[in-house]
Amino acid sequence: MSETKVQAPDSVPFIDVSREFAAPRDLVFRAFTDPELLVQWLGPARYEMVVETYDVRAGGSWRYIHRDADGNEYGFHGVFHGDPSPNGFTQTFEFEGAPGHVSLDKLTLEEQNGRTTVLTHSVYQSIEARNAMVESGMEEGMNEGYDRLEALLGRLVPVG
Amino acid sequence: MSETKVQAPDSVPFIDVSREFAAPRDLVFRAFTDPELLVQWLGPARYEMVVETYDVRAGGSWRYIHRDADGNEYGFHGVFHGDPSPNGFTQTFEFEGAPGHVSLDKLTLEEQNGRTTVLTHSVYQSIEARNAMVESGMEEGMNEGYDRLEALLGRLVPVG
Repeated sequence: MSETKVQAPDSVPFIDVSREFAAPRDLVFRAFTDPELLVQWLGPARYEMVVETYDVRAGGSWRYIHRDADGNEYGFHGVFHGDPSPNGFTQTFEFEGAPGHVSLDKLTLEEQNGRTTVLTHSVYQSIEARNAMVESGMEEGMNEGYDRLEALLGRLVPVG
Repeated sequence: MSETKVQAPDSVPFIDVSREFAAPRDLVFRAFTDPELLVQWLGPARYEMVVETYDVRAGGSWRYIHRDADGNEYGFHGVFHGDPSPNGFTQTFEFEGAPGHVSLDKLTLEEQNGRTTVLTHSVYQSIEARNAMVESGMEEGMNEGYDRLEALLGRLVPVG
């Protein structure tokens, strides 16, 4: 299994995450943009994921909900900035449990020898908001999500 | 004339700007959202401003052009995140002369005794991108724009 690398330097309000997947870029892009695939991997396995809107185009909106076994719902929403492409895309991100705190998330997909490195660069409006995101268990959730994505891609990837 | 205060601390990728205007908040909000008013003040006076799109709502897009006397055009675009209100709004911002560099700009309007303080908090994807924005003469352009906004509000404000 591949390793998720998370960097959140004290002095700047960024979170950078990278992980390599054994799949071509177009397939990884599909997994990030097709709601039917997204719900199979994004976030911790203990949540059911419901995509309300996922309009992947410049100015398109997105919103999804994570629902736990007790029926508690955690909503997230934002908009896409610029034209999404298999090179990646940029979107705003707001957790509705902390309204008014918005981040700007840039996704980059880099393919080499049929493998794809997924890089995310998230920028927060304050160091405090970035720290709150780190302390929310975001790293664990992201790692668990990426483990599920790795398994999903393993089922989807063409056998060479 | 009021003073524009600009802060861009070395260590964090932010630009914070504040200025007080002798006008109620609803009027300042109109000046920030009505394209017919926007073109009268935003940016340096030497540019003609053309608003292509200014769809002030959650997920709405915006694009405008600054055109100089020689016909050179400088385009800017982005999207609005969340519901704009007279309290302010959040938008993405990209100068098309530096494609791929996006900032997240939060506008806050605070009214007290019929005067309104305009605060902008802009977050960049790197310290370098923030510095490039500062070095582009952004402070001078913003100050000149706000001087024009002050004059415009003086013509629009109801006489008490």
